[in-house]
Amino acid sequence: MGVHSGLLRLATEGDGEIVDITAGVRAVVERSGVTAGAAIVFARGSTVAVTTMEHEPGGVHDLRGLLARLIPAGDHYEHNVRNADTNAHAHLRAALIGPSVAVPVHDGDLALGTWQQIVLIDFDDRPRERQVSVQVLD
Amino acid sequence: MGVHSGLLRLATEGDGEIVDITAGVRAVVERSGVTAGAAIVFARGSTVAVTTMEHEPGGVHDLRGLLARLIPAGDHYEHNVRNADTNAHAHLRAALIGPSVAVPVHDGDLALGTWQQIVLIDFDDRPRERQVSVQVLD
Amino acid sequence: MGVHSGLLRLATEGDGEIVDITAGVRAVVERSGVTAGAAIVFARGSTVAVTTMEHEPGGVHDLRGLLARLIPAGDHYEHNVRNADTNAHAHLRAALIGPSVAVPVHDGDLALGTWQQIVLIDFDDRPRERQVSVQVLD
Repeated sequence: MGVHSGLLRLATEGDGEIVDITAGVRAVVERSGVTAGAAIVFARGSTVAVTTMEHEPGGVHDLRGLLARLIPAGDHYEHNVRNADTNAHAHLRAALIGPSVAVPVHDGDLALGTWQQIVLIDFDDRPRERQVSVQVLD
Repeated sequence: MGVHSGLLRLATEGDGEIVDITAGVRAVVERSGVTAGAAIVFARGSTVAVTTMEHEPGGVHDLRGLLARLIPAGDHYEHNVRNADTNAHAHLRAALIGPSVAVPVHDGDLALGTWQQIVLIDFDDRPRERQVSVQVLD
Repeated sequence: MGVHSGLLRLATEGDGEIVDITAGVRAVVERSGVTAGAAIVFARGSTVAVTTMEHEPGGVHDLRGLLARLIPAGDHYEHNVRNADTNAHAHLRAALIGPSVAVPVHDGDLALGTWQQIVLIDFDDRPRERQVSVQVLD
């Protein structure tokens, strides 16, 4: 019983890239030896988010398109004006989706649905090195 | 101290049905005997989500309407084209809301607000059998 | 190993006020003595939400504006009609953002990104006294 920590490091293209991180999270769970518990998956940074989805090309295209439509990169944003910046849309999209999911662990594996993967979405407008902290609790 | 697992099974109508699952989650907490801890509530599947709200007919109507307006079922989606499918909007709505909430447990009960319930939203475009995994940690 | 509880109490202006609660959450973590684990941060109430963001004036302005644009206060809502109420938009915004985040604890501190803060957003249309429950698990 306790806490088993893992850190995933990944290089992204940014600009809304959606990366399937399920295998990385699963590897932390397996290494932990935890059979029943929960995995906290948390993306570090204010322009990156974590959620779950079926990670297939159509859905990935649609989710990127949806967020670009709801929160256009080209709108006027105070963040950009005040900070001489260009990625206000990335901050907003990340705050809306949120940085974390908590996934149960059963029988030593993530209790995901059949077509459900854990994804990181990097909304920043340039390539980034990202860190995802995984804490497996039991 | 440890992990106490519960699995809620429910049949939904799909199409954005919002189900109050608070009583089911509370039953898992009570059965666990945990007095202080946290309940991880996770919906399995990529077209279903979990959040909290005041589950009353007006708010339920409004939330269904909001998601239908922001993410219309009838738009063009690559998920539908590529997979000869019809539920791309369900995938998008689920990814936006997210699959999990983590609710503190105090004095043996969920630390919800007075008018705050835990809800499952089934966005799929047909009736489904759903599973919600509940892990109570202490 | 166990559960370490904290309760943050704060008075807000409502109307979408975004409050940086990182220092309060961090104080609970420090008081717990936990070096490795996770902090569950949960806002009690159905018109209040928790997420992470860079809490600077531009981003705060933009996020308030985004939610006011996506979910206008002045639209017709059944919640308002049925309950003779005025804050249906607050309920919807809160359900969309969600009530909780789970933040890893490493080396005795929250594993946030450099520019990432934990924020409470009070969407209600009047000042409120709010409670945020923090459970540190290890």
